[in-house]
Amino acid sequence: MNVNLNDIRNFLLEHDNFLILMHQNPDGDTTGSGFGLYYGLKSIGKNARVLCSDDIPDIYKFLNKEYQETDFIEQFVISVDIGSENLFGDGLEKYKGGVDLNIDHHFSNENFAKYNYVDATSASTTQIIYEVLDKMDIDLSIIMGRCLYTGICTDTGCFRYRNTTSKTHMIASKLLELDFDHSEIVYNLMESKSLQKLELEKHIINNMKFYFDGIVGIAYITQDMIEKSGASQYEVDGFSSFVRQIKGVEIGVTIKEKTKTFCKVSIRTSGNYDASMICSMFGGGGHKNAAGCIFNTSVEDALSELLERIKKIIDGV
Amino acid sequence: MNVNLNDIRNFLLEHDNFLILMHQNPDGDTTGSGFGLYYGLKSIGKNARVLCSDDIPDIYKFLNKEYQETDFIEQFVISVDIGSENLFGDGLEKYKGGVDLNIDHHFSNENFAKYNYVDATSASTTQIIYEVLDKMDIDLSIIMGRCLYTGICTDTGCFRYRNTTSKTHMIASKLLELDFDHSEIVYNLMESKSLQKLELEKHIINNMKFYFDGIVGIAYITQDMIEKSGASQYEVDGFSSFVRQIKGVEIGVTIKEKTKTFCKVSIRTSGNYDASMICSMFGGGGHKNAAGCIFNTSVEDALSELLERIKKIIDGV
Repeated sequence: MNVNLNDIRNFLLEHDNFLILMHQNPDGDTTGSGFGLYYGLKSIGKNARVLCSDDIPDIYKFLNKEYQETDFIEQFVISVDIGSENLFGDGLEKYKGGVDLNIDHHFSNENFAKYNYVDATSASTTQIIYEVLDKMDIDLSIIMGRCLYTGICTDTGCFRYRNTTSKTHMIASKLLELDFDHSEIVYNLMESKSLQKLELEKHIINNMKFYFDGIVGIAYITQDMIEKSGASQYEVDGFSSFVRQIKGVEIGVTIKEKTKTFCKVSIRTSGNYDASMICSMFGGGGHKNAAGCIFNTSVEDALSELLERIKKIIDGV
Repeated sequence: MNVNLNDIRNFLLEHDNFLILMHQNPDGDTTGSGFGLYYGLKSIGKNARVLCSDDIPDIYKFLNKEYQETDFIEQFVISVDIGSENLFGDGLEKYKGGVDLNIDHHFSNENFAKYNYVDATSASTTQIIYEVLDKMDIDLSIIMGRCLYTGICTDTGCFRYRNTTSKTHMIASKLLELDFDHSEIVYNLMESKSLQKLELEKHIINNMKFYFDGIVGIAYITQDMIEKSGASQYEVDGFSSFVRQIKGVEIGVTIKEKTKTFCKVSIRTSGNYDASMICSMFGGGGHKNAAGCIFNTSVEDALSELLERIKKIIDGV
């Protein structure tokens, strides 16, 4: 059933021993939501634990340095920022069908829990966690502030994307009343890049292609380019918006070669082009301006299939 | 004399026919402040005009499309975002010594006007203009919102820099209650780049140099690189933070060749390194983490002079 913020407050106040699940390949929003909620619950004397199928990437480690693994027997399971049980990952298989409370901001959320709270107007799930903690009259600590700010920053591109609302800034305003260095978080999350990433960037720029009077821009990232540059897997993931930034490009396609017969495609659009519609033609999905799909083909074949479909969309067929 | 926000409100309400000056080489903050104040004054029936020594760059043109040049005889002169009369530019020479009200956020402001309001805790001058309009109970229009948001965005790197405060986000929250597409402003101001700029970026990456275990990164932009890439002068100016973004670089130096015997240097620092202190050794200045200076030498000679000084700072001499 669907619940509201008051229901969540009551659920959390009346129970104890919460296991908080994050999605696989954890990003700043699921990590910030998981630990933000954990610290909030701990601050009022509740027992909690945070669990993720994958390791937390180093750049988010500052969010869990106050985290304590203690003896714990879970009684209630909460998922944060997880749109579907398919995103639990192998390590969390056993919780499929067993989530009590599902807190998320993805429009496509599958309401898989006993109690579901999905607010798709929220820029991030941490924005919802802020509202939950606020509703519970929990005093925010610095570490909670860092967690919630990190999720907002991750999912809004640091207040740049269209999902940023008046409420997002209002919450950021409250968070910055706490004494932490937001600028350092932004720098570590978004601005800092290694020489290897810069090298990869050079390869990507050198190999970009443009079609249909420059409306469509295509960037490739091949295994060969990754090896030559020495960039890490995490760094490779940061290029989805790169080609769309070029003036005139309204459909930016990034094709990442995983093997010679498997590649991942990210599409970013502006204007009225619908990225999720394009990706859904290939079994993928996402949001209007940001979506993804996969191809069990070579990069070249993925490109020609994509161009064929995109041409029809541009031609209005 | 120094005045407060109430004094400014009274000054504006009690007088009329305001000429608003912006600084030379106008950026988003002086432009947003000038037009933001202009639209605010017009909305309560005052006469005003905005003046700048240089043309407003195309990317800020959306801020003045409702601007009307009408018959106007100036009675009072206001400067916005101008730290010193030296920044008036040739076209505004005649106003030196003649400014009535100076509204600014630069710490180094020279208080050159009859009435001065300098709030160095403000992230942007538009943040102050918001407070002025709010103090005057002026209802914000969409175009005013665009102006004020543009200034904040420009001077905070879209809420990334350390000067962004809780108040900055609170004001952004109020502005986003107005119905304008903030995301498009950000995209046009900061994200969109031409193929020519991308080409220049490639040349810069190829020629970067690192010193002192990578703590110091140097980027050059020569006239030859600019010509080869076809980038515009405006695009050339956007690289000051580029080299500092590389992991490990705490002092990022960008040397722009203007002629064979004249170059402009921008320094961006993190941590405890003081950019303004380094630049002041060469007759320049700025803020702790962002400063500039000029050299009447070749790029090579500027580099060796800079490295010599920076070495002493790193060595703690």
